[in-house]
Amino acid sequence: MLPHVAIIGVGLMGGSLGMALRQRGLASRVTGVGRRAERLETARSLGAVDAWALDPHEGVREADIVFIGVPVGQTAAIFRQVAPSLPGGCLVTDLGSAKARLTTDCEAACPEGVFFVGGHPMAGSEATGVEAARPDLYEGAVYILTETARTDPGALERLEALVRALGAAPLRLAPEDHDRMVAFTSHLPHLLAWALARAAEDARRIDPSLLSLAAGSFRDMTRIAASSPEMWRDIFLHNRENLLKAALDFRLRLQALEDAITSGDEAGLERLLAEGQTARKAFRG
Amino acid sequence: MLPHVAIIGVGLMGGSLGMALRQRGLASRVTGVGRRAERLETARSLGAVDAWALDPHEGVREADIVFIGVPVGQTAAIFRQVAPSLPGGCLVTDLGSAKARLTTDCEAACPEGVFFVGGHPMAGSEATGVEAARPDLYEGAVYILTETARTDPGALERLEALVRALGAAPLRLAPEDHDRMVAFTSHLPHLLAWALARAAEDARRIDPSLLSLAAGSFRDMTRIAASSPEMWRDIFLHNRENLLKAALDFRLRLQALEDAITSGDEAGLERLLAEGQTARKAFRG
Repeated sequence: MLPHVAIIGVGLMGGSLGMALRQRGLASRVTGVGRRAERLETARSLGAVDAWALDPHEGVREADIVFIGVPVGQTAAIFRQVAPSLPGGCLVTDLGSAKARLTTDCEAACPEGVFFVGGHPMAGSEATGVEAARPDLYEGAVYILTETARTDPGALERLEALVRALGAAPLRLAPEDHDRMVAFTSHLPHLLAWALARAAEDARRIDPSLLSLAAGSFRDMTRIAASSPEMWRDIFLHNRENLLKAALDFRLRLQALEDAITSGDEAGLERLLAEGQTARKAFRG
Repeated sequence: MLPHVAIIGVGLMGGSLGMALRQRGLASRVTGVGRRAERLETARSLGAVDAWALDPHEGVREADIVFIGVPVGQTAAIFRQVAPSLPGGCLVTDLGSAKARLTTDCEAACPEGVFFVGGHPMAGSEATGVEAARPDLYEGAVYILTETARTDPGALERLEALVRALGAAPLRLAPEDHDRMVAFTSHLPHLLAWALARAAEDARRIDPSLLSLAAGSFRDMTRIAASSPEMWRDIFLHNRENLLKAALDFRLRLQALEDAITSGDEAGLERLLAEGQTARKAFRG
């Protein structure tokens, strides 16, 4: 029996999920839930959902699995809102990039007979909206599933199987471990991209032709500053402590480089750069 | 009459230049100059040069145009070294990413009857060596040519025509203007990439599985930390003042974001992120 899947929030992530579920024949039906009929109709016409509902209660009432794909600051509230309408045995998960606070809140909101397992597919981009969705977005991506003392093993396995069927690689992590690590691999890079884009804008006001000198390195380093401010505001605030710790570590490393430059320490500077180069090469891709 | 071109330092940039000159039929002969016969023979076998010389004097003796493609800290010294062997009317240029100090030094080293015009093709990548060279590297790239009170107009026009023939877009800039702008668009991004790669390495020592959580944003933000430490040590030190100013501006922007996160200021944080998003969107690509 294929599951009936409801996706609350059919943007880049939710829309890509719907497309993949439909194209791979992994759901009997995909129902999209959102706030605007026009956007949901676009999602349907793009093949992301079979049907849609503006009323979240209606959208989830017959769902076997519910994916909540909204900014992490809204996830728990939406869970609480739809909780009374969730059928027994329903599995609820999310697509959010910060997990500790959200998992605690969602577990607290989880009704008897309903299962919550947090999820974070490490895919996506700075693009937003279902127009940017594509059925292969999750293929080959690491997809984190949170495991806590309250996690139901059967529900976790069920979601793990679905993640594998999507072509992604499930990875179980405690929410706190997840948040500590993505602070470095995702949240800090985003924060830096925003600060760099903003600093360059200051410079551009003085030198309008700065634009023509923006080559590959600048484009790569600021690409993700085009991401959704609303979504990232929530992620940054949810993972505040880890992010600030990572930023502090980054600042110390930056300061060491600046000190070597200030003092004209050629050998010291080259050593620091070689260390960074080695560190980079330890990461794949 | 096609020029005889000598390229001192046949790596990614010099090698790509040689390939483009040869494939487009823009030189009567391309002579590579370097320190290791084996590397130069590789360059020849890859089609980057017609011939090569270990002795720089021999390499430049019949050249109409000499490109110096070595780390910026060595450019002026090499110019001074070969100066006695340069034929009258010869045009000397370089491929370096920092221009003010280098242009001053090279103009001072320039013998009577020889012309110097600094150059900076805004192409390249974190890769190094002639194995990474490709004939289309310069195509569509902005190629800065420095213009100072001492620049010979005829030599500048000659180089400009060659740059256009390579498929690149020449842009005249005063060396100081160039350095002030690339501090933001290239040098600061590189500095940040190195600091981020190093900070992530600290975190990886605590969480070895951090590697599997490094998605697109991290890869993009650290890619250029794989660049040559020797080359970038020189660039950073040559453009020290502008780079430290850019880093300070970046720090202030980062601090503002951190402050909003620390205080949990949702509206203020979203506003800062939206500003950065707008700034990023003002840049093409």
